[in-house]
Amino acid sequence: MRMYDVIYKKRKGGELTEEEIRSFISGYVAGEIPDYQASALLMAICFNGMNEAETAILTDAVANSGDTVDLSRFGTLTADKHSTGGVGDKTSLIVAPLAASLGAVVTKMSGRGLGHTGGTVDKLESIPGYRTALSAEEFIAQAERVGIVVVGQSGNMTPADKKLYALRDVTATVDCIPLMVSSIMGKKLAAGSHSIVLDVKVGSGAFMKTPEDAEELAREMVKIGKRCGRNVAALLTDMDTPLGCAVGNALEIKEAVSVLRGETRGPLREICVALAANMVSLALELPIDEALSRAEASLDSGAAFAKMKEWIAAQGGDVAYIEDTSRFPQAPGVFNVVSDRAGFVTAIDALKIGLASVLLGAGRASKDEEIDHSAGVVLRKTVGDSVAAGETLCTLYTAREDALRQATEDVRAAFAIADTRPEKRPLIYKTVR
Amino acid sequence: MRMYDVIYKKRKGGELTEEEIRSFISGYVAGEIPDYQASALLMAICFNGMNEAETAILTDAVANSGDTVDLSRFGTLTADKHSTGGVGDKTSLIVAPLAASLGAVVTKMSGRGLGHTGGTVDKLESIPGYRTALSAEEFIAQAERVGIVVVGQSGNMTPADKKLYALRDVTATVDCIPLMVSSIMGKKLAAGSHSIVLDVKVGSGAFMKTPEDAEELAREMVKIGKRCGRNVAALLTDMDTPLGCAVGNALEIKEAVSVLRGETRGPLREICVALAANMVSLALELPIDEALSRAEASLDSGAAFAKMKEWIAAQGGDVAYIEDTSRFPQAPGVFNVVSDRAGFVTAIDALKIGLASVLLGAGRASKDEEIDHSAGVVLRKTVGDSVAAGETLCTLYTAREDALRQATEDVRAAFAIADTRPEKRPLIYKTVR
Repeated sequence: MRMYDVIYKKRKGGELTEEEIRSFISGYVAGEIPDYQASALLMAICFNGMNEAETAILTDAVANSGDTVDLSRFGTLTADKHSTGGVGDKTSLIVAPLAASLGAVVTKMSGRGLGHTGGTVDKLESIPGYRTALSAEEFIAQAERVGIVVVGQSGNMTPADKKLYALRDVTATVDCIPLMVSSIMGKKLAAGSHSIVLDVKVGSGAFMKTPEDAEELAREMVKIGKRCGRNVAALLTDMDTPLGCAVGNALEIKEAVSVLRGETRGPLREICVALAANMVSLALELPIDEALSRAEASLDSGAAFAKMKEWIAAQGGDVAYIEDTSRFPQAPGVFNVVSDRAGFVTAIDALKIGLASVLLGAGRASKDEEIDHSAGVVLRKTVGDSVAAGETLCTLYTAREDALRQATEDVRAAFAIADTRPEKRPLIYKTVR
Repeated sequence: MRMYDVIYKKRKGGELTEEEIRSFISGYVAGEIPDYQASALLMAICFNGMNEAETAILTDAVANSGDTVDLSRFGTLTADKHSTGGVGDKTSLIVAPLAASLGAVVTKMSGRGLGHTGGTVDKLESIPGYRTALSAEEFIAQAERVGIVVVGQSGNMTPADKKLYALRDVTATVDCIPLMVSSIMGKKLAAGSHSIVLDVKVGSGAFMKTPEDAEELAREMVKIGKRCGRNVAALLTDMDTPLGCAVGNALEIKEAVSVLRGETRGPLREICVALAANMVSLALELPIDEALSRAEASLDSGAAFAKMKEWIAAQGGDVAYIEDTSRFPQAPGVFNVVSDRAGFVTAIDALKIGLASVLLGAGRASKDEEIDHSAGVVLRKTVGDSVAAGETLCTLYTAREDALRQATEDVRAAFAIADTRPEKRPLIYKTVR
């Protein structure tokens, strides 16, 4: 195979063969195919696309470009969840124990946060003692014993995706359905779960701006995942505002605990129930309505919370913090940001809230920065709420007084306030199965 | 300017600004823009094209990416000719003195041959004493005194084209009209002549396989050249067979002399007259019919041949070789290749003839190889000729007896012989002005 011929064929609209796609991925990972040929091919794919067969092969090649997790001993009971990401997205912290409490086996290898989005592993490290690195044996043993395990990424998973994503990021080839599908689904296939539920965010704060675009991506991912032998469902969910109230590591753990205890209702609970119910419905072959009512019941009965404590304890975390979240250290500085006018909150810019939380110490601007687990932002108003002049919009938690001024400006700019109440947007647009 | 934004804009079908195009070229030549971003942009241009304004800016940026030749002292009298290349293309050797004999100022910086196509500079070096390297002062002084000067490429002309062409060659982005136009016309603009005549080859041996494709390229080059302030015309000429009979350095000089002396008629003379007449028509603002008859007259009167001798002498070449071409050393081995069947020659594969001539010593397989100026191939039959079994198809000249067997196979394979006479193809399809 000559890479030139592969590029030329795709440029002219041809269908790439299995051998061409696999040689491209293995040659690129091995450094035998230079970046400039890879970027030319990626751009040609952006224009001429890939059909279902090509995309499935590319996805499988990405999945198998490095280490994979073998969960075959669990049969079809394993269920995973993937979100296209966002600010204050603590759904994994809730969905994983909720689904496990209903009988699914949930194993997750999560990333750390960089820039304005937080990472599940950082959030879990707020809990004293929690071990994010387990050996392969410990990982499998815990999954068998507790039905849930969440660790940090280790080893050499999907190196093809890491290299391709870095290239796409600088060559304007990110927003291309077959490339997005192979990137997301490749990682999910490598992670090994039999059932996969995708949370595809829609809205101004998300990669997919319209429900139509999000649905196209969702349908492709479901199709390719099934073609690769997995159960897949996708939820299209609204992402115009941060999910829930808390943005910041320990702050989000507290909010997650409150949902798992059945204390907090609203959009965050609703989305977590939908995600967990879809996972369980796929893994246990339950009708979705049955799965939904079981998920609601698990939150209300305390079963989900019990599963969370079992999980945290199994991984060495101090459960006392989960049972009494007031034990989490509080940031030395707590500041309310108030509204300078009356009206209705019509939008909250998730990106600006995320950037402010980084300024306050909750995130990393660069890879090796330390995180202040107590820092962050808690929203006191959400979209649709009325607000009086002088009323609190959100609370900032930080040890960095020097960052306050900029963070205050950012969060105030994040809130759009108008005279009329905004139309209510759906929380879940659609489920694709 | 961020290169990412430029790629993204072109991918989405946008028009690039002058600043974006110039920053891309200067940044790429300076090594600040990596190959992988350049190749992504080139591929996006292949799909979304460039409009006339963008192509003109790109062409100008390529032209001015390095050294340029200033011929402004000659006003509008300078005329240049460019061929999209081919085997046995000795038109420059004939057209340059022919146009100069009619009053145009012809200055050429020519390349050396590599692979199966010969270089004008290699051919001229067959003549003892001919100097292919002149100082800038000598170059201009000779142009003023003799009206013609032909040297090898020196200095740092159009480095952007060299770098971009090498990249396009390995990323399947060669056949793209705006990129081809900016490459060819960028080099011609840098070479400084006010009038430019383009010889666009059409046919199986050429880059453009159909007259329609060739015409599209020709029209774009003429349009962009005019937009950049030059006079431009393009001839679409047939390139299914090698032009003329000789392939090889001294062999081609002999054939050129024979045409310039008015001794040889036929397709080669016809094309050279058309090219020179168009140059002179543009440079001297003559009606094309008048220019054509002056060109014919110059060949018949010996004026063109006199100009050739004046030129060769001015550059130090031994004119005795031009006056008596039997002085050129003859290759030690001369072998006739005969036909194994009777019929009509329906095609001669120029590429195979070119490769055979390299085997015989006439060209370079790699950059620093020595050339045998006496080696080459002379065709004895051309397309449309009838041939008897055992009759000579061509003659091989070489000092390499070990290459004879392969070269004989190649040239025999180059001749297609059938029972019926082929239809006559036009020599010049069209002139675009």
